[in-house]
Amino acid sequence: MKIGIMTSGGDCPGLNAVIRGAVLRGIKTYDHEFVGFLDGWRGVVDGECIGLPRHKVRGISKQGGTILGTSRTNPYDGPNGGPENIAATLARLGVDAVIAIGGEGTLAGARELTNAGLNIVGVPKTIDNDLDATDYSFGFDTAVQIATEAIDRLRTTGEAHHRCMIAEVMGRHVGWIALHAGMAAGAHAILIPEQKVSMEQVAAWVTEAYERGRAPLVVVAEGWVPEDEDKPWAERGVDAFGRPRLGGIGEHLAPELERMTGLETRATTLGHIQRGGVPSAYDRVLATRLGMASVDSVSDKRWGTMVALRGTEVVSVGFQEAVGNLKFVPQHRYDEAAVLFG
Amino acid sequence: MKIGIMTSGGDCPGLNAVIRGAVLRGIKTYDHEFVGFLDGWRGVVDGECIGLPRHKVRGISKQGGTILGTSRTNPYDGPNGGPENIAATLARLGVDAVIAIGGEGTLAGARELTNAGLNIVGVPKTIDNDLDATDYSFGFDTAVQIATEAIDRLRTTGEAHHRCMIAEVMGRHVGWIALHAGMAAGAHAILIPEQKVSMEQVAAWVTEAYERGRAPLVVVAEGWVPEDEDKPWAERGVDAFGRPRLGGIGEHLAPELERMTGLETRATTLGHIQRGGVPSAYDRVLATRLGMASVDSVSDKRWGTMVALRGTEVVSVGFQEAVGNLKFVPQHRYDEAAVLFG
Amino acid sequence: MKIGIMTSGGDCPGLNAVIRGAVLRGIKTYDHEFVGFLDGWRGVVDGECIGLPRHKVRGISKQGGTILGTSRTNPYDGPNGGPENIAATLARLGVDAVIAIGGEGTLAGARELTNAGLNIVGVPKTIDNDLDATDYSFGFDTAVQIATEAIDRLRTTGEAHHRCMIAEVMGRHVGWIALHAGMAAGAHAILIPEQKVSMEQVAAWVTEAYERGRAPLVVVAEGWVPEDEDKPWAERGVDAFGRPRLGGIGEHLAPELERMTGLETRATTLGHIQRGGVPSAYDRVLATRLGMASVDSVSDKRWGTMVALRGTEVVSVGFQEAVGNLKFVPQHRYDEAAVLFG
Amino acid sequence: MKIGIMTSGGDCPGLNAVIRGAVLRGIKTYDHEFVGFLDGWRGVVDGECIGLPRHKVRGISKQGGTILGTSRTNPYDGPNGGPENIAATLARLGVDAVIAIGGEGTLAGARELTNAGLNIVGVPKTIDNDLDATDYSFGFDTAVQIATEAIDRLRTTGEAHHRCMIAEVMGRHVGWIALHAGMAAGAHAILIPEQKVSMEQVAAWVTEAYERGRAPLVVVAEGWVPEDEDKPWAERGVDAFGRPRLGGIGEHLAPELERMTGLETRATTLGHIQRGGVPSAYDRVLATRLGMASVDSVSDKRWGTMVALRGTEVVSVGFQEAVGNLKFVPQHRYDEAAVLFG
Repeated sequence: MKIGIMTSGGDCPGLNAVIRGAVLRGIKTYDHEFVGFLDGWRGVVDGECIGLPRHKVRGISKQGGTILGTSRTNPYDGPNGGPENIAATLARLGVDAVIAIGGEGTLAGARELTNAGLNIVGVPKTIDNDLDATDYSFGFDTAVQIATEAIDRLRTTGEAHHRCMIAEVMGRHVGWIALHAGMAAGAHAILIPEQKVSMEQVAAWVTEAYERGRAPLVVVAEGWVPEDEDKPWAERGVDAFGRPRLGGIGEHLAPELERMTGLETRATTLGHIQRGGVPSAYDRVLATRLGMASVDSVSDKRWGTMVALRGTEVVSVGFQEAVGNLKFVPQHRYDEAAVLFG
Repeated sequence: MKIGIMTSGGDCPGLNAVIRGAVLRGIKTYDHEFVGFLDGWRGVVDGECIGLPRHKVRGISKQGGTILGTSRTNPYDGPNGGPENIAATLARLGVDAVIAIGGEGTLAGARELTNAGLNIVGVPKTIDNDLDATDYSFGFDTAVQIATEAIDRLRTTGEAHHRCMIAEVMGRHVGWIALHAGMAAGAHAILIPEQKVSMEQVAAWVTEAYERGRAPLVVVAEGWVPEDEDKPWAERGVDAFGRPRLGGIGEHLAPELERMTGLETRATTLGHIQRGGVPSAYDRVLATRLGMASVDSVSDKRWGTMVALRGTEVVSVGFQEAVGNLKFVPQHRYDEAAVLFG
Repeated sequence: MKIGIMTSGGDCPGLNAVIRGAVLRGIKTYDHEFVGFLDGWRGVVDGECIGLPRHKVRGISKQGGTILGTSRTNPYDGPNGGPENIAATLARLGVDAVIAIGGEGTLAGARELTNAGLNIVGVPKTIDNDLDATDYSFGFDTAVQIATEAIDRLRTTGEAHHRCMIAEVMGRHVGWIALHAGMAAGAHAILIPEQKVSMEQVAAWVTEAYERGRAPLVVVAEGWVPEDEDKPWAERGVDAFGRPRLGGIGEHLAPELERMTGLETRATTLGHIQRGGVPSAYDRVLATRLGMASVDSVSDKRWGTMVALRGTEVVSVGFQEAVGNLKFVPQHRYDEAAVLFG
Repeated sequence: MKIGIMTSGGDCPGLNAVIRGAVLRGIKTYDHEFVGFLDGWRGVVDGECIGLPRHKVRGISKQGGTILGTSRTNPYDGPNGGPENIAATLARLGVDAVIAIGGEGTLAGARELTNAGLNIVGVPKTIDNDLDATDYSFGFDTAVQIATEAIDRLRTTGEAHHRCMIAEVMGRHVGWIALHAGMAAGAHAILIPEQKVSMEQVAAWVTEAYERGRAPLVVVAEGWVPEDEDKPWAERGVDAFGRPRLGGIGEHLAPELERMTGLETRATTLGHIQRGGVPSAYDRVLATRLGMASVDSVSDKRWGTMVALRGTEVVSVGFQEAVGNLKFVPQHRYDEAAVLFG
């Protein structure tokens, strides 16, 4: 078979390891041939691809980014989009099946195309760890590790200055990165989209930690909203001058907490450093295994499925399990972390 | 309740995070009181312990080692050992239950003491990830990460010199560290105790990689034995001068592979750097959760059980599940990695 | 002699290594006794200090922050400030001399106090590397290393998305961190306060790099100002709602560059992670040596001097050399880096 | 001009940054053209080289190893070696000058060839920092950083087990890596080739540290010899079975120290991980600057010189300064470190 691979959506450490795992498995176990579509669905729609012989994937498992490029293009957009055009393009290129590596949006698109008759297998990609169908997805471990190391650094400065330090981490809809990095770093408050918490409660945790002689440490997911507010900072549009509003929730939280607690408070937004760079060993192993398993799925013609981690094993699940259900932080995991608060 | 905690056996990143998790959970959720026995079973046998109020565990989750010290002492040794003496010592100290953090040997001892009537809950600790009852144990992820980073470094030197590089990693009986670090780093051969492989096969993988233009990379677990030999280097006793034999399997493999392949070959034994130092975020989270769960088990009087990771959840299992069954690398995981060989 | 040590101003990796070096040198070579004043000049003014026996400094050289705390208090402030009050306080505590670890402001204060008769020796501390009297100061190497690792991560994401990435690093008045991190990470433009550059020039460099197939990378010091503007963002006060203006130059640069080049552009402000956490080996060695040398200066009664690095040796220079002269990035160093631009 | 670059001798982090710096400077400032000779002098002797246009050096400054390969070949070896043959080969290839990046041996060869009329400029490369003509050479900072991080890890295990830990680092003739890593990590004894120390003294330092409640930490350079012995372990040839002697000084020191002190003692040989992998930011900047300056030297026809770091500036010195004089650790630097011992 001739298999096309594509990577779609935001950057995520481990994408290259998925590609390497798929290509080596396909060539050595099944004698498949591979091409890589460039820049996500755009390359599929435009039929733009490169050959992926074995030597092209050498040594890439430890590289961040994706050798194929990525984009947020939708497979239905433009004159060449949609299932019929894509089917024709794949036929023209002699591509028998597509491995789509992407998040909820990518997999939703893949489901529609599969329903329309295309041969697609998915690999879940979400740095936020918000796909319900898999225990963990690659990239998440790296993001948590980077965030934890950064917060470890912030903590020493907080202690030197007797300040409250706020670290804003990724997580627009779910709080997994904040939960894990906060537990690892010993945060005195973890604020995540799943949990409504009042500013008074946050201030109380900060004050309690300070009174025990600690430099209070708050980890906040970018999508958290204080209990009495209604939408995340990221969605508040432009400012009075028509410019995009700058700064995330962390920067808005800092002066407010400082006012409420009387403690000097500083915020740092970790931003894009959480989603680039060398993947952790955990993510390289997971990504390699998912890549290999996706080729097994293609070889078995399990169209419309994606690979997923369950416990220690990689399994195959239908797209419908992956799409539409965000994996939220469950209450008992937040309660567990809350033991560390204050 | 008054709960004693002890850490036993070899050092392992995350021990302090277990202690922190247990103490904070116990104090904040149950109002328990904690003492820490010093240096593993020795402290229990001798009744030597320190108080563990909340401030003693502050900031320790990111510290390697154990604030309680560790040793390989057996609870049955010496005039004060054995269940009756220990029961008397615990009674004298007012200690109602013990949380024993240790590996197979420690948990086997704990099982015997529990059978004799002591109140013990276990937390599995094995840097080699060789306990069958838990999906993963803390410390393993850190060891794999350190080994992977080191192997990444070795690789560039191999490539600059067109040499074969051998990395010897931990794993006396099981090959999990070698398997994961080797997959992550892209090894051309992974040699583990579970798999008999001939020197000829190893040389063939090395030669094949070299002929594809790569600098061959071999990851070998310390307990691996070539197919035609019968016991690990570590057990071969003294040399002809009555001195302990120096060097591990890696150093013995290097000249042999060099002779067989004609390729300059160098070995590095990673040694103790794999089991010390700052734990990874993954291990801090896992260790914290296990520590917390162990206190839930104590509070529920689930004596004779240990906590364990299954999928994403922490569960409670009987000591018998943890003792006597090493978790070997299964054949399909080795086959998966072998796709990368040669 | 009884020597007081204090750390003043912003956090900086290596402060604890200075303290360790001074205390061990003083105790073992000269039989001095040490106390540590808490929170910079505040502790001196208030006479608040702790004993610093040898065991208090054990293992601290690798810890970020300062075990003595720090603040931006001025020694002339308050009812107990000023040379006479401080002299009386030191006399009451039996402190013969003070080692002041701090930046330009701290050393300026120290000079005045020395002129008024106090026995003070300085240790230069500036994470920005902006003190002219020393080749390098501790903390700078760590900041550059952290910034470089972060920018390495940003780069892979830029390449995956074909975006322009902007990294804002520290440097309010001088551009050393931007210069070194930018050279190390291979930036296509480095923007520093010492160099007026037009937005058109920046856009030209970005476009040139993009047209060569690169993901453009811009490193900007927080104090940089575009040629046609007059003051840094940090000094622009409040916005139209009376709230402090959020976001630094990086976040303002991004939409402007995007508009000018047509390239998707993202900014990350590294912020406080650059000045906390475990110091690099370079900084630990330099800080230890400076700490030791400061005690030699005290023992020689070289009041009014500070220690400094010149080439590979630590020397002693007068406060006047350290105060009033910022060490700017010289033109030939910027020209050297500019070879990498575009 | 058409300039050939070559990298010779052992791997060293920063080689690729030198190449990048030279090529970009040469192309952008002088319009030079570049080729890279493969595998050190071998490529020069055999006339084997590749073109080095700008895009070949993109993104390589953070890669360990060398894109040109390296070897320990001598330029006088073989039928094509020696100045006349090499001159003919360079003429045939149209190469006007050679930039030789290498250590003492490479530079000695380069001096002879220059004396015979070839156009050569040198860039000093020594991971051991043992070239007298430069304050620091690239690669050294990375090696010290890696060693320090490894020793930080060993220390926690030593403390958990109340053991003495020995770390063997590189340094066959000089002890710079041991000195810096030992100071940074807080070693209780640092053993370097320049300093004869008796085993009794080492044991005394270890015992003193243990009695103060510390886990003793010994850092030993591979070339250290105890006072009463006469040559390093590395030179002791084969064992009684005619096999190369395994294990370095660290592994031999451990049982001896254990016997003398009664303390459990473990050694780790850091080995090749010290000389590979991603260079530190310090080394990337230094290597880039040296590479750029080497092209300035070529453009000025300063044949027979090499570039060197003096203080904060890069200067040009004659080969004779670089050759024949090892830079030993001076007594005052060892005395400084010895304040930390015991």
